Amino acid sequence: MAAAAAPPPAPTPAATALPNPTPTGLPLFSRVRLATPSDIPHIHKLIHQMAVFERLTHLFSATEASLSSTLFTSPPFQSFTIFILELSQAPFPPSPSPPLFFSPITQTTTLDLPIDDPESETFKSNDKDCGFDVVVGGFVLFFPNYSTFLGKPGFYVEDLFVRECYRRKGFGKMLLSAVAAQAVKMGYGRVEWVVLDWNVNAIKFYEDMGAKVLQEWRICRLTGWLFQNFLSKLASTPPWMIFSV
Amino acid sequence: MAAAAAPPPAPTPAATALPNPTPTGLPLFSRVRLATPSDIPHIHKLIHQMAVFERLTHLFSATEASLSSTLFTSPPFQSFTIFILELSQAPFPPSPSPPLFFSPITQTTTLDLPIDDPESETFKSNDKDCGFDVVVGGFVLFFPNYSTFLGKPGFYVEDLFVRECYRRKGFGKMLLSAVAAQAVKMGYGRVEWVVLDWNVNAIKFYEDMGAKVLQEWRICRLTGWLFQNFLSKLASTPPWMIFSV
Repeated sequence: MAAAAAPPPAPTPAATALPNPTPTGLPLFSRVRLATPSDIPHIHKLIHQMAVFERLTHLFSATEASLSSTLFTSPPFQSFTIFILELSQAPFPPSPSPPLFFSPITQTTTLDLPIDDPESETFKSNDKDCGFDVVVGGFVLFFPNYSTFLGKPGFYVEDLFVRECYRRKGFGKMLLSAVAAQAVKMGYGRVEWVVLDWNVNAIKFYEDMGAKVLQEWRICRLTGWLFQNFLSKLASTPPWMIFSV
Repeated sequence: MAAAAAPPPAPTPAATALPNPTPTGLPLFSRVRLATPSDIPHIHKLIHQMAVFERLTHLFSATEASLSSTLFTSPPFQSFTIFILELSQAPFPPSPSPPLFFSPITQTTTLDLPIDDPESETFKSNDKDCGFDVVVGGFVLFFPNYSTFLGKPGFYVEDLFVRECYRRKGFGKMLLSAVAAQAVKMGYGRVEWVVLDWNVNAIKFYEDMGAKVLQEWRICRLTGWLFQNFLSKLASTPPWMIFSV
């Protein structure tokens, strides 16, 4: 788990609110759409940037191949699902036909200054339908979880990431809101994610959004060499004896 | 989330290890099998008992109908999956044919004293193939989660519960081990669950099993009236504006 978006404050006020009658704002068009397998190279790079941001590269072992073999194996929302954030200086065209699973969400942000994206070539979008340059700016990966107390599913947000040059402009909120709106649409009971306890800015951001931070629960994890250890014991030990100490 | 098994210590030593040459132990036979829709009435009662145990009945709103409409909608292990713990005073017969998804796990525990189960009628198992009395003693509900850092799925254990009269006999460990063994079998990268930070006995039990307790992460949740609030705003507000405060 590595949900970690830099908490964006409220979007910059539009230029029209300034006393200067000449429009000085630069529009930045954004879109949230379902990811496809062709997005995997970008998703892999974004996950690596997230590991760098969280200083957790020692835990990073994903490859494009491992992502390819484990993602996009079920219809969207039934299992692991990814929304991609795209950005452009031109408005996105409407979807040519009603999408089967998810209608992309678009938004326009007015900037005071142009954004210098040093990785615009690396993150050029694969969407050829736009007819103009589109870059991938972030993603959110989520999947259904289940509340036995509610007797219904919810969504768990595993990762939420926006590239550095696009942070603090409301895009993290746009991605998380898209997940929450989908949960509501499906009649789900809740949306959950995790945050590092020292990340006070993120905690404030989430609380301002209406989320409750559960202070008493701790995550337990069996992974890595512990898991391998388990694997080696499995060959010769009945499963119920494996954890004996 | 409500993973909460009373941490069982090591099983009672078998009677054969005592100096008394006459076997005095009473065998208790246990089995972990996949749940089916016919188990829902028992599962519903077990979840309610868990809510009582955790003093969280104010959060309990599940009904048999809500469980029926949201569980068993996908093949086992691809989504929400339940293992049932059954107990009997007679050995379980071998499975008549190789099961499609999961071979039941059996275990024999030797007791010093018989267990008085005041709810044996309520929790009588639906399995008619055994030809003798079998009771449901607990369950574990789990589903796939995903680690982007590992680039592979894992299992998240949402609930782990053993009825009071069967606690401290290794059945919680048997259920959790069954999930971990299934994760290993499927090549998954980790198993996770949560624990209340004041439940030091459970934390020690999990750490002794080889699990790591992640101290820095906190769970964030959007649910209940917050979620309803979100729903009501959704009708008139673009999704990306919903969390504006």
